[in-house]
Parts: sequence; structure tokens; C-alpha cells
Amino acid sequence: MGQATNQFEDKVVIVGVGLIGGSIAAAVRQRFPDCAVVGVGRSEDRLRAAMDAGLLTDWATECTAELLRESAIVVVCLPVNLIVEQVRLIAEICSDGVLITDAGSVKAAICDEIQRNEKASRVFIGSHPIAGGEQGGFEHAEANLFEGKVCVVSDVDAANTSEMAKLNRISRFWQLLGCRIIRMSAAEHDRVLALTSHLPHVMAAATTIAVGAENFSLTGSGFRDTTRIAAGSASLWTAILADNRKNVIAAINRAESVLQEFRVALQKKDDLQVESLLEAAARCRSEFDSADPE
Amino acid sequence: MGQATNQFEDKVVIVGVGLIGGSIAAAVRQRFPDCAVVGVGRSEDRLRAAMDAGLLTDWATECTAELLRESAIVVVCLPVNLIVEQVRLIAEICSDGVLITDAGSVKAAICDEIQRNEKASRVFIGSHPIAGGEQGGFEHAEANLFEGKVCVVSDVDAANTSEMAKLNRISRFWQLLGCRIIRMSAAEHDRVLALTSHLPHVMAAATTIAVGAENFSLTGSGFRDTTRIAAGSASLWTAILADNRKNVIAAINRAESVLQEFRVALQKKDDLQVESLLEAAARCRSEFDSADPE
Repeated sequence: MGQATNQFEDKVVIVGVGLIGGSIAAAVRQRFPDCAVVGVGRSEDRLRAAMDAGLLTDWATECTAELLRESAIVVVCLPVNLIVEQVRLIAEICSDGVLITDAGSVKAAICDEIQRNEKASRVFIGSHPIAGGEQGGFEHAEANLFEGKVCVVSDVDAANTSEMAKLNRISRFWQLLGCRIIRMSAAEHDRVLALTSHLPHVMAAATTIAVGAENFSLTGSGFRDTTRIAAGSASLWTAILADNRKNVIAAINRAESVLQEFRVALQKKDDLQVESLLEAAARCRSEFDSADPE
Repeated sequence: MGQATNQFEDKVVIVGVGLIGGSIAAAVRQRFPDCAVVGVGRSEDRLRAAMDAGLLTDWATECTAELLRESAIVVVCLPVNLIVEQVRLIAEICSDGVLITDAGSVKAAICDEIQRNEKASRVFIGSHPIAGGEQGGFEHAEANLFEGKVCVVSDVDAANTSEMAKLNRISRFWQLLGCRIIRMSAAEHDRVLALTSHLPHVMAAATTIAVGAENFSLTGSGFRDTTRIAAGSASLWTAILADNRKNVIAAINRAESVLQEFRVALQKKDDLQVESLLEAAARCRSEFDSADPE
């Protein structure tokens, strides 16, 4: 018992117990049963239900100083547009042993803003565990959601020992939930995620709209797979796209120019060029499958 | 035994024993063990292996008159650009009891061409079972691949009794393999499939190329799902896109204009418009999920 506690944290506070927050809670409960897991949210009913489901050891409707007077990791699992404000509030009242992180899909807008606040910047390291699903709510939480998944942790200056200590503590936290850690600047994270995550979401939405419900009777597994993520929450994704606006626009431009290559090749009946585009995609996608056999 | 034979066909000849041809063979073998299933292909080794796998009762490297002197359904499961020639050859030598169909993902280019050949048009009805996978070869064949799937059958003039007899026979064939039948003109089929199948393929390929292998370490399940079909055979898909050129170009235009709406809304910081696009897509996709809970 003592061993698990020493290896891990004594307390994890999760602000926002949805799919991600709930899955963090489930992973901690399963792996470190001695660690306190406190859920913070707006709805008492939802928090009670999450506790009944075994995800939490306690809950509260706000982050109080009392809750944060001991050593704890606080993970803010709110929509990206609500993270900064919450981190600032918590930084105002928390004890020295508290380290705050988040699970937001964009990093620069959040980290840059927090950087400007001295208190908050001292106790915060940005995280993005790349895991999720299109169905929100702790009911879909899974204790193994993070198993083998990458968690990007905002990199710090290696010469700054207090920053490095925070980085190591937060890296260890995610690693012990099953993640592989990649250290990366917030700006680089956002540039890459615009391509690997935000663009696929926009492409899935565009495909769904272009196809139209009137044609659904003639869809196959291709349509089902390529558009699955389009069912995700519109408001969550609007905030993500807005917070990563420039990179997302650049990613859309990139996809549009490939689509244009397809269109022009088809118009010119240049089927060799069509095939060479399809081959490039197939080769690239097969590389992905070899690297990620799931 | 006699009953199954009476209900179904006596013989099914499958030209091209790949994923689709192999799955038809497997479905027939499983459901109608008294029905002969003859595979026709170029490679003796592959055909022998398919027979060893229990998919075929016999095989041949070409469709001979001998093979087609009795009542049989011939299903041409070749790449779309090879179907017409094969149907013409078979129509030249087959007996009266033979009905030829195909499983091609485009219909107008095939059916129009066959229509111009008197012999072939008399013994052919176009089909498209909407089922498949990105991995080819009979090794991936599944006896239940067609279970609950739609098969589009090229519609005929209801006043033409001999055409209606062919249509009914071919519909029954696919139904007994588990398909739901939708009758549709070849032109309408191609217009709709350009959106529901050919566009998703192009979008998946464009997403894969735009993301680029150098960024794969930061992909999640969204990228995996939206690009899965991009791994499909480049040559098969080049032929499909080429045979449905005009409709595919129109479908790409449609998707490009939705992408442009996203881009413009993001550029103008009109996040309400971004959200309204995402909501339209999510609503539409949820409708699809309710209709197709698989």
C-alpha cells in the first residue's frame, strides 16, 4: 500500500469529470487504489454518479484551498476555452505541493496565457494525452484509455531545475497511467496536431456534409470509418479549432491543395497522376499501420 | 439437399477470386453446400489455395463453354476496367441458362458499354454489393461479408418481362447471400456512390498525404479511422475514379466548397459559423449512426 502511494501521488484532483477526466480517475483508481481521487464539477448529481461508479473517492463543486492544502496533482479536463481561467483560480489558492496540468488538445493558446500570470506559471505544466473518443461523459470512461498512448508534455528549459522538476513529476504521472511521453514546445505541438487531429476532424465533417443524409442508404464501411469522428461535440471542437486557428487554416489549405491535385488529374484524365497520388497515400497509410498495429 | 439446390442456383462461377469473389464463394458454400462454386482466375496456385481453403468446389483458368453449358450465375469480380471485356467473352459462349453479373463499384461505364453489345446485354444485369475492406485477397474473405449489406441492382424496364426475370433472379441470388436489394439506374448509382464511397476514399487519401508520415507519432484514433481506407489498392481505386470521373469531380467540388466554408469562417473568426458547420455534420453523422448501429 505504502509503496504504491510513494511511487505515485497522494491525491489527484480532476476538474471536469467527463470522458478524459473520468478515464484518468478510472486509471488512477485501478492502478493506485491508495491515491485519493477528487472530482470537481458543476453538477452534484453527475459527481455523485461518478463516485457511485467507483471513479472518485470524493467530490466537490469547487476547488477550495482546503482541497488543495496538501500535495496533489490537479488535472484540468475542461473544454480548451475554460482551462486558463480555472488554472489561474487554482494557482491563487493551492499549496506549494500542488502541480497543475491540463488535458487540452491545444497548447500554445493555453500555455502562453498562463505564462503571463506569475502564480499560475509557477505551478503549471501543459499536457495533452492523445486519447479520446467521440462520445463524451464519464460513462464512457475507460481505465486503459491511456495505455500505450502518447502524452505530449510542454517542454521546458533544461537548465531551469524547478521547471525540470515539474516536468519530471508530470511526466511520471502520465507514464504511470500508461502513456508514452513526448516533450515538445506548445507551438510545435499545435502545428502538428492541426494536421494529425484537427484536420481529420474538419475533413470528416466536410465529408459528412458533402455526402448528405439523403444518400446514407448507399454508404459502406468506408464512409462509416472516415466520418466517425464527425459525431463529436460541435462546441468542444469549435473551441479547439478557434484556439489553433492559424495552424488549422494552414492544414486545411494543405488538404485543399491535395484535393485540387486529385481534381485536376481527374479533369485532365491523367490517371497515372491519380494513381501516383493514391499510391503515395496508401504507402504512407501502410507505414502508419506498421508503426501502430492496433 | 434438393431443397437448397432448388431454392438457390445449381452453379455459381466466380471470375476473380479476391476479397469479394472469395466472400461470395464462402457465403454460397456456407449457405448452399450443394451448389457448385467454380473459381476462375489467372493463377493456378491461387485457385488451388482457394479450393484448399474450402471456398471452391472446382476451378479453371478460363471460362470455357464446357463450364457454362448449364444453368449458372457468373459473377465477374474483377477490377472495374476489366469487367466489360470479360462479360463479352462469357456471353459469346454461355448457354441460355447462364446469367452474368458483376460486383463493380461503378455501374454506368460498365452497363452502357455492355448495352451496346447485343449478346452481352441479353445475359447481363449489373450489381454492386456495397461491402468490402481495404485488404484484398481471398485470405480475407468472409462468408458473412454481405449479411445486411445493400446490393444495388441495375434497374430495368418493368414492362420488359425477360429483363424483369433476370432482375428477379439476380436479386434473389444476392438476397440469399444476405443482401438487401436496392434497384437503381446505373447513372443514379454512380452519382450517389461518388459521394458515399469514392469521395471518402479521396478524402482519406488527401488527409493522409496532408498529414505526412513525419507527423504520425502524434496521431490518435481520429486519424486512424478517417484514413483507414487510404490503404486500399491504388490501381483498383484509380480505375474506379476514372470510370466515374464526372461524378467524382463533382463530389470533390462539393467537399472543397465545405472545406472553404470552414476556412473562411476560421479566417473571419466567425466561430458561430464554424460551430454551425460542425453541428450540421454531427447531427448528420448521428442520424447515420441511428440508422446503422453497427
